Amino acid sequence: MREKGRSFAEALSQAQALGYAEADPTFDVEGIDAAHKLVIMASLAFTMPLAFDKVYTEGISRISSEDIRYADELGYRIKHLGIARRTDHGVELRVHPTLIPQRRLIANVNGVMNAVLVSGDAVGSTLYYGAGAGAEATASAVIADIVDVARTLDVRPDQRVPAAGVALAEQGDTLVLPEEEVVTSYYLRISAHDKPGVMSQVATICSEQGISIEALIQHEPTEGEELVPVVILTSRAREACLREAVAQIESLETVEGDVVRIRVESLG
Amino acid sequence: MREKGRSFAEALSQAQALGYAEADPTFDVEGIDAAHKLVIMASLAFTMPLAFDKVYTEGISRISSEDIRYADELGYRIKHLGIARRTDHGVELRVHPTLIPQRRLIANVNGVMNAVLVSGDAVGSTLYYGAGAGAEATASAVIADIVDVARTLDVRPDQRVPAAGVALAEQGDTLVLPEEEVVTSYYLRISAHDKPGVMSQVATICSEQGISIEALIQHEPTEGEELVPVVILTSRAREACLREAVAQIESLETVEGDVVRIRVESLG
Amino acid sequence: MREKGRSFAEALSQAQALGYAEADPTFDVEGIDAAHKLVIMASLAFTMPLAFDKVYTEGISRISSEDIRYADELGYRIKHLGIARRTDHGVELRVHPTLIPQRRLIANVNGVMNAVLVSGDAVGSTLYYGAGAGAEATASAVIADIVDVARTLDVRPDQRVPAAGVALAEQGDTLVLPEEEVVTSYYLRISAHDKPGVMSQVATICSEQGISIEALIQHEPTEGEELVPVVILTSRAREACLREAVAQIESLETVEGDVVRIRVESLG
Amino acid sequence: MREKGRSFAEALSQAQALGYAEADPTFDVEGIDAAHKLVIMASLAFTMPLAFDKVYTEGISRISSEDIRYADELGYRIKHLGIARRTDHGVELRVHPTLIPQRRLIANVNGVMNAVLVSGDAVGSTLYYGAGAGAEATASAVIADIVDVARTLDVRPDQRVPAAGVALAEQGDTLVLPEEEVVTSYYLRISAHDKPGVMSQVATICSEQGISIEALIQHEPTEGEELVPVVILTSRAREACLREAVAQIESLETVEGDVVRIRVESLG
Repeated sequence: MREKGRSFAEALSQAQALGYAEADPTFDVEGIDAAHKLVIMASLAFTMPLAFDKVYTEGISRISSEDIRYADELGYRIKHLGIARRTDHGVELRVHPTLIPQRRLIANVNGVMNAVLVSGDAVGSTLYYGAGAGAEATASAVIADIVDVARTLDVRPDQRVPAAGVALAEQGDTLVLPEEEVVTSYYLRISAHDKPGVMSQVATICSEQGISIEALIQHEPTEGEELVPVVILTSRAREACLREAVAQIESLETVEGDVVRIRVESLG
Repeated sequence: MREKGRSFAEALSQAQALGYAEADPTFDVEGIDAAHKLVIMASLAFTMPLAFDKVYTEGISRISSEDIRYADELGYRIKHLGIARRTDHGVELRVHPTLIPQRRLIANVNGVMNAVLVSGDAVGSTLYYGAGAGAEATASAVIADIVDVARTLDVRPDQRVPAAGVALAEQGDTLVLPEEEVVTSYYLRISAHDKPGVMSQVATICSEQGISIEALIQHEPTEGEELVPVVILTSRAREACLREAVAQIESLETVEGDVVRIRVESLG
Repeated sequence: MREKGRSFAEALSQAQALGYAEADPTFDVEGIDAAHKLVIMASLAFTMPLAFDKVYTEGISRISSEDIRYADELGYRIKHLGIARRTDHGVELRVHPTLIPQRRLIANVNGVMNAVLVSGDAVGSTLYYGAGAGAEATASAVIADIVDVARTLDVRPDQRVPAAGVALAEQGDTLVLPEEEVVTSYYLRISAHDKPGVMSQVATICSEQGISIEALIQHEPTEGEELVPVVILTSRAREACLREAVAQIESLETVEGDVVRIRVESLG
Repeated sequence: MREKGRSFAEALSQAQALGYAEADPTFDVEGIDAAHKLVIMASLAFTMPLAFDKVYTEGISRISSEDIRYADELGYRIKHLGIARRTDHGVELRVHPTLIPQRRLIANVNGVMNAVLVSGDAVGSTLYYGAGAGAEATASAVIADIVDVARTLDVRPDQRVPAAGVALAEQGDTLVLPEEEVVTSYYLRISAHDKPGVMSQVATICSEQGISIEALIQHEPTEGEELVPVVILTSRAREACLREAVAQIESLETVEGDVVRIRVESLG
């Protein structure tokens, strides 16, 4: 979408024609397919059971070309990421559109290509990149899996090391962090009437929820439009605080419609 | 300074070595020389007496390389401009550093070159550009003036049309707008402690003075520095309101030192 | 054309609709209108008679969007310039599309705006910029001329200084340099079959005419096209030598069609 | 070097201080260390014996900041790559500085980070990226190898699948392509006297060796320098032909010193 400036519907129908999209487009668009892959990788990485029903998923259909442009001006790309992260309070499992700094390698993974970024304690960040769809690439992955299985065929079952390193029965339960507890930065886009008071009201609401404003840009209203798009980058904040702040902003008289909100990850 | 990333002192001493700076550097640096030229042009443009003592002048010595960089990121160049503008309430006469959108021709006038931008009612904007200092260019201008005088030598004095089109005696008095009444946009740089509350306090102060915030960027603190530089672009506001807002911001406990403020002109 | 990526025909018909184009479009497109203005300015600058029939004019209708793009990659803009220059061998009078380095102010004069660049011996380069078409701007210029005439109304005719500084009768004849004698750099675009030999043949032809190659870029052939566009920037060369080189290049078996050629001026 | 504009010696001594450089710096600088890794990966990828003594290695000590800049202008980055590629005539094994198009992910791998790009028949290109030096990252890799060994401890030796998929004894001999037979594009930098003839001589030499010139840029001589740096990008050519062409170019009277040559890979 970003490179060709295409609308979402065009981009989707072309992806389907090329055989890259799942038969049920909501699998791609709503992040279901990414969530499937995320729980497998989280299970391997954190030795935890598959927990598909605990993944928070958010689709890309509400991302507008306006947001892609504003994110670009702020130095970010928008990617549909699945994120599994172990924290002191539980494992985060979430799939959603994400602003990533343009200079990160993963921000430059485009088209049919996919990448997995792994952050380990000693090794630091490593990244694995390849075609994420298409007949040949998928067939290649399936054959590779069969080869892996075949290699262990005459190994005695009790000598096989399970994929996660621990037998399933021995895996303890792992707490998945409820989405409201997740802490991230946010991109917010507010449609406001251009009155001096609105910025101060928004800043006060954010401040009361302990959210700091890192950047705020008032863009030109679109031709023939009265409402002013205001874009805000917040500091890291608990999701619950952010939801409360957004609800209060949406109830302001000087603000129209819903606040667009997209999470931001620095992946530093 | 911008192109070579030099400090102010270096740039000044090189300009003096090259013979570009006035003998008394404050003439350039504090805008006195520009004010001299401004009153002559304002007199010709608006048929008003020379009013040097009514020009508001502000020098460039407080512009830091930090401000040049932040302005650049926002799409602006900083130029030391003299501005004479006829408004309904009086003529503005002011010399000060000014943020100008990078895409304007006048934002790309560098080094020893100068330009005069004239906005007429029917002709629109016209611009006159040439060397603004140096022995040869100055000599050329002096000779051109002598040629102009010589051409009128044998014209009968009573037939000469005065430069301003009207005899000095017939020129009425022209109100020069006090600087507090001038309306412009502003670039503000605040050194703040990074607490969620500070943005909301600043936004509230601006709002109470009828000043809208067009953009606000919180930059990374410099290495080993605790204070966060916050850059704000304001809507157009009366100077008196802005001064009041700045005084209140400077008195906040979460803000340290003076607020840097530079006027912004779109020259659209 | 460059900014909107429009074709020549679209750009022309829009300019006509806006009242910017001359009634006879060839006046603009073929540079006739520019030639009219050029001879007036040359007459004032060099105290020479109006010499419209000696102006070399070349239109813009053959400039393709491909050339605009290739010029851009090399750091140039293409502008339709009228050039009058006094040389030791005569005055150059020519109107043609010209590649100008992007960093020059005059390369950034777009749309309906025009600029005149004057290079004097002592003053160096000066530039005069304003709207070059449109009802109001044209009316403003006409009124300004009438005011100038009116100011001299009661001056005794024998005391008037002629515009050129010298009475017409006293103006000597000025040699206009034939176009073949003019020395400039050139942008050449050749459509070649992709064979190793062609570059060496072209380089040998240029070398034999005393023309050095400053840059040579072989671009990708357009989709479904076999011919390779080769773009060359030459050193400064006499027009006659360049014409001979182009004729020989066009006669090569490995080259198809005409060589596109556009003059280059550094305006340094 | 590119990002900080540092000289080679500075960059090396800082890398040593940080513990990133091998004890014997020639291991890094001359590509010995990269060659070690290359033959292991080639052995796994192409089921061939380790063939360290057949690797062509070329160091980075002759890359100048000038070449980094010229490559940048042409849209390339210079990276020290190890390349193993199976061709119809044998396997290429070579380590050398390489120009890579800037838009490739691998061109944006900087600092201590390393990446391996694998092109498979069905899967296409995949890339593996991570820290290539440093105590913790190295320790992590060593531990991972030990874990892998431990996992196979109680597998019966005759049931283990060898790393390359085939027992060493059954591996046939694989022809390593002599460096003279390798076919790549080339970046050449020639120091020439600025005479029209030199370009035609160079183009003729290239043409006689079947080498086509894709781009040729004559740069400005450095201050106080008479020689003109001429940069050439060639089409793909056999190394032997290129060596012959370079020898002939170096023997031209109009050319001084050695021709700098760096291979170019599009990695498309």
